[in-house]
Amino acid sequence: MTFDGMWSAIEPVGRHAETGGYRRYAWTRDDATMREWFAGEAAARGLDLVTDRAGNQWAWWGDPDAAVVAGRPGVVVGSHLDSVPDGGAFDGPLGVVSALAAVDVLRDRGFAPSRPIAVASLIDEEGARFGVACAGSRLITGGLDADTARGLRDADGVTMAEAMTAAGHATEHVGPDAETLRRIGTFVELHVEQGRGLVDLGRPVAVGSAIWPHGRWRIDLDGEANHAGTTRLEDRHDPMLALATTVLAARAAATAQGCVATVGKVAVEPNGVNAIPSRVTAWLDARGPGEAGVRAVVEAVGRQSGSMAVEESWTSGTAFDVPLSRRLSGLLDDAPMLATAAGHDAGVFAGAGVSAAMLFVRNPTGISHSPAEFAEREDCHRGVEALTRVIEELAR
Amino acid sequence: MTFDGMWSAIEPVGRHAETGGYRRYAWTRDDATMREWFAGEAAARGLDLVTDRAGNQWAWWGDPDAAVVAGRPGVVVGSHLDSVPDGGAFDGPLGVVSALAAVDVLRDRGFAPSRPIAVASLIDEEGARFGVACAGSRLITGGLDADTARGLRDADGVTMAEAMTAAGHATEHVGPDAETLRRIGTFVELHVEQGRGLVDLGRPVAVGSAIWPHGRWRIDLDGEANHAGTTRLEDRHDPMLALATTVLAARAAATAQGCVATVGKVAVEPNGVNAIPSRVTAWLDARGPGEAGVRAVVEAVGRQSGSMAVEESWTSGTAFDVPLSRRLSGLLDDAPMLATAAGHDAGVFAGAGVSAAMLFVRNPTGISHSPAEFAEREDCHRGVEALTRVIEELAR
Repeated sequence: MTFDGMWSAIEPVGRHAETGGYRRYAWTRDDATMREWFAGEAAARGLDLVTDRAGNQWAWWGDPDAAVVAGRPGVVVGSHLDSVPDGGAFDGPLGVVSALAAVDVLRDRGFAPSRPIAVASLIDEEGARFGVACAGSRLITGGLDADTARGLRDADGVTMAEAMTAAGHATEHVGPDAETLRRIGTFVELHVEQGRGLVDLGRPVAVGSAIWPHGRWRIDLDGEANHAGTTRLEDRHDPMLALATTVLAARAAATAQGCVATVGKVAVEPNGVNAIPSRVTAWLDARGPGEAGVRAVVEAVGRQSGSMAVEESWTSGTAFDVPLSRRLSGLLDDAPMLATAAGHDAGVFAGAGVSAAMLFVRNPTGISHSPAEFAEREDCHRGVEALTRVIEELAR
Repeated sequence: MTFDGMWSAIEPVGRHAETGGYRRYAWTRDDATMREWFAGEAAARGLDLVTDRAGNQWAWWGDPDAAVVAGRPGVVVGSHLDSVPDGGAFDGPLGVVSALAAVDVLRDRGFAPSRPIAVASLIDEEGARFGVACAGSRLITGGLDADTARGLRDADGVTMAEAMTAAGHATEHVGPDAETLRRIGTFVELHVEQGRGLVDLGRPVAVGSAIWPHGRWRIDLDGEANHAGTTRLEDRHDPMLALATTVLAARAAATAQGCVATVGKVAVEPNGVNAIPSRVTAWLDARGPGEAGVRAVVEAVGRQSGSMAVEESWTSGTAFDVPLSRRLSGLLDDAPMLATAAGHDAGVFAGAGVSAAMLFVRNPTGISHSPAEFAEREDCHRGVEALTRVIEELAR
């Protein structure tokens, strides 16, 4: 099956008729369809499919455990198949489909790998359903506690444990998975670029250098509920005004610090047209090239909002394997090295001490997490070529 | 039954255990409990209970139709028993309980009315469930179309017709009700004040002069969904920034025009922490002493938000019966005359040509539509006294 054939096969799954965006959330019917499709592709190639404790899928070409014993653990390439709400087609699936296509190229050429090769499909990378990103990689590396994960609830109150059970995955073994991790000699994730770096450089493919430090904060803005008609302006304690200040402060502080900051989620109580709100809660997402800058943004926003920014998550900056990344850049005609502000499973693995790298494929819109996310088909094929060369280099 | 006894009887109905606020929505179980309580109070006094086409309840002392024939239609006093979400105890029930208590005082004194007297409990004044305020009075005066009303849906998708049927009210007769209207010679609604006018004046009771013109507008702020981490600030079209501008513009324009303006309801799409929103919708509530000022506020907010403010509702200013209001003020020791920015059934009746007036009782917090809404018991008793004098004057 060619890249184009695989792409067409998954294109309709979980696509929303109205928005054109994807709603492939972990442990749902559409997620199961994607996982079954992946298992079918593995079977069609005679690859050995292993599902680990967290539910991540690994399709092996060669014996991963014999390689561990021999001190030459495998080369793993892949990404994820789930999406954010109304996400694009490329974020995740491009890496999985490209990995399968690269394996096809190598097999067609009669390539004889010196190390086993796997295509990985990581579960629940976006965290769209249960609120924790990279759940699959975090669970097996121990970055996400198994009990915590099992107890996470989706918007309907369904726990992750219940969702896993409904999807046929045994929950009692969820947790750190040393057996799976030791099989990974090198992890390489190909991903659509989520910005305009490659567009500006006029190049189709880049190598990842680092993931920016990033975090998420909750800011509760308290006011006093009252009648929107009868309360004089001077008697009001309207937290919607504090929200306005918070949003503008986030933009100003991010500009000043060379970071990015976003208020993308807001909750208003009671959210009635004729009621001054009693409380507005804003969530702040802030990222930047250095931790000090990001911390300065959050401090400034908290101060100007008149409230405390409560940290809900924090991920330190992650450098990928520097010698490996430089080697891949050289291999790929001096591909540019780009840092990214998005979290990825490759970053989780790098943070857990696994040798990891990333490739990025040009996105002409620069837009991601939206139906407007895009990659030209020719650039997708260039990505497959690049990934093929990388596997060949690492498993020669 | 005394004022205090009646107040205690209804105090627990529809009160939320956590917030302490009331959730008495039209045509629900709690609403039925309140209506049954009202019917019981009418029966205990030997008043004739009539339920009109819309479901409003009228408890008559004397024959209303004989009075119509004699050209001396009745004096109606009352208010409503439903609430906004987590509303206070006083908005509505204070008027109904005070009206029953005033009738008790007159009967104890052996007062012989020259005109029939009714206590009214209007249905669905707040519009909390189906989104249209003063539905009961608007339906019988024809201000709200019967088919439109029957088709209104609550948050669960239940239509008003279905809710009425479930509560045992026949929906086929819902509509303009001339028979009910011609029985009303004068309508007087006593209500807790929803501001601090009487606190500032040091007076317990005021007479209403007018209801400010008021309206509701929707402002759609369009942006471009994108990744909160990877999108450069200069590449963003973030509608949350436009929301901030809109909120601040509303406050500034209202201050400049001597009006009030509120953004109390907001909807964010997709409302994800790591997603720049594709759209933010804000609802603007604006009111003021004159239509020109209110229109100027809305025009300024629309212009500064960069979007169109779409009118969802508009109610022109309503003057109550001016000679009647002045007469009542004189009767009540020169009670101050206060305008209000809140809609009321008395305003709907006034707009439909019925002679109508309002009394306001001091609210020490100035807060309404909140559990903090309050009236001192002594002021409630002063309200009953005032209403007693008003009925005596009008039905002498």
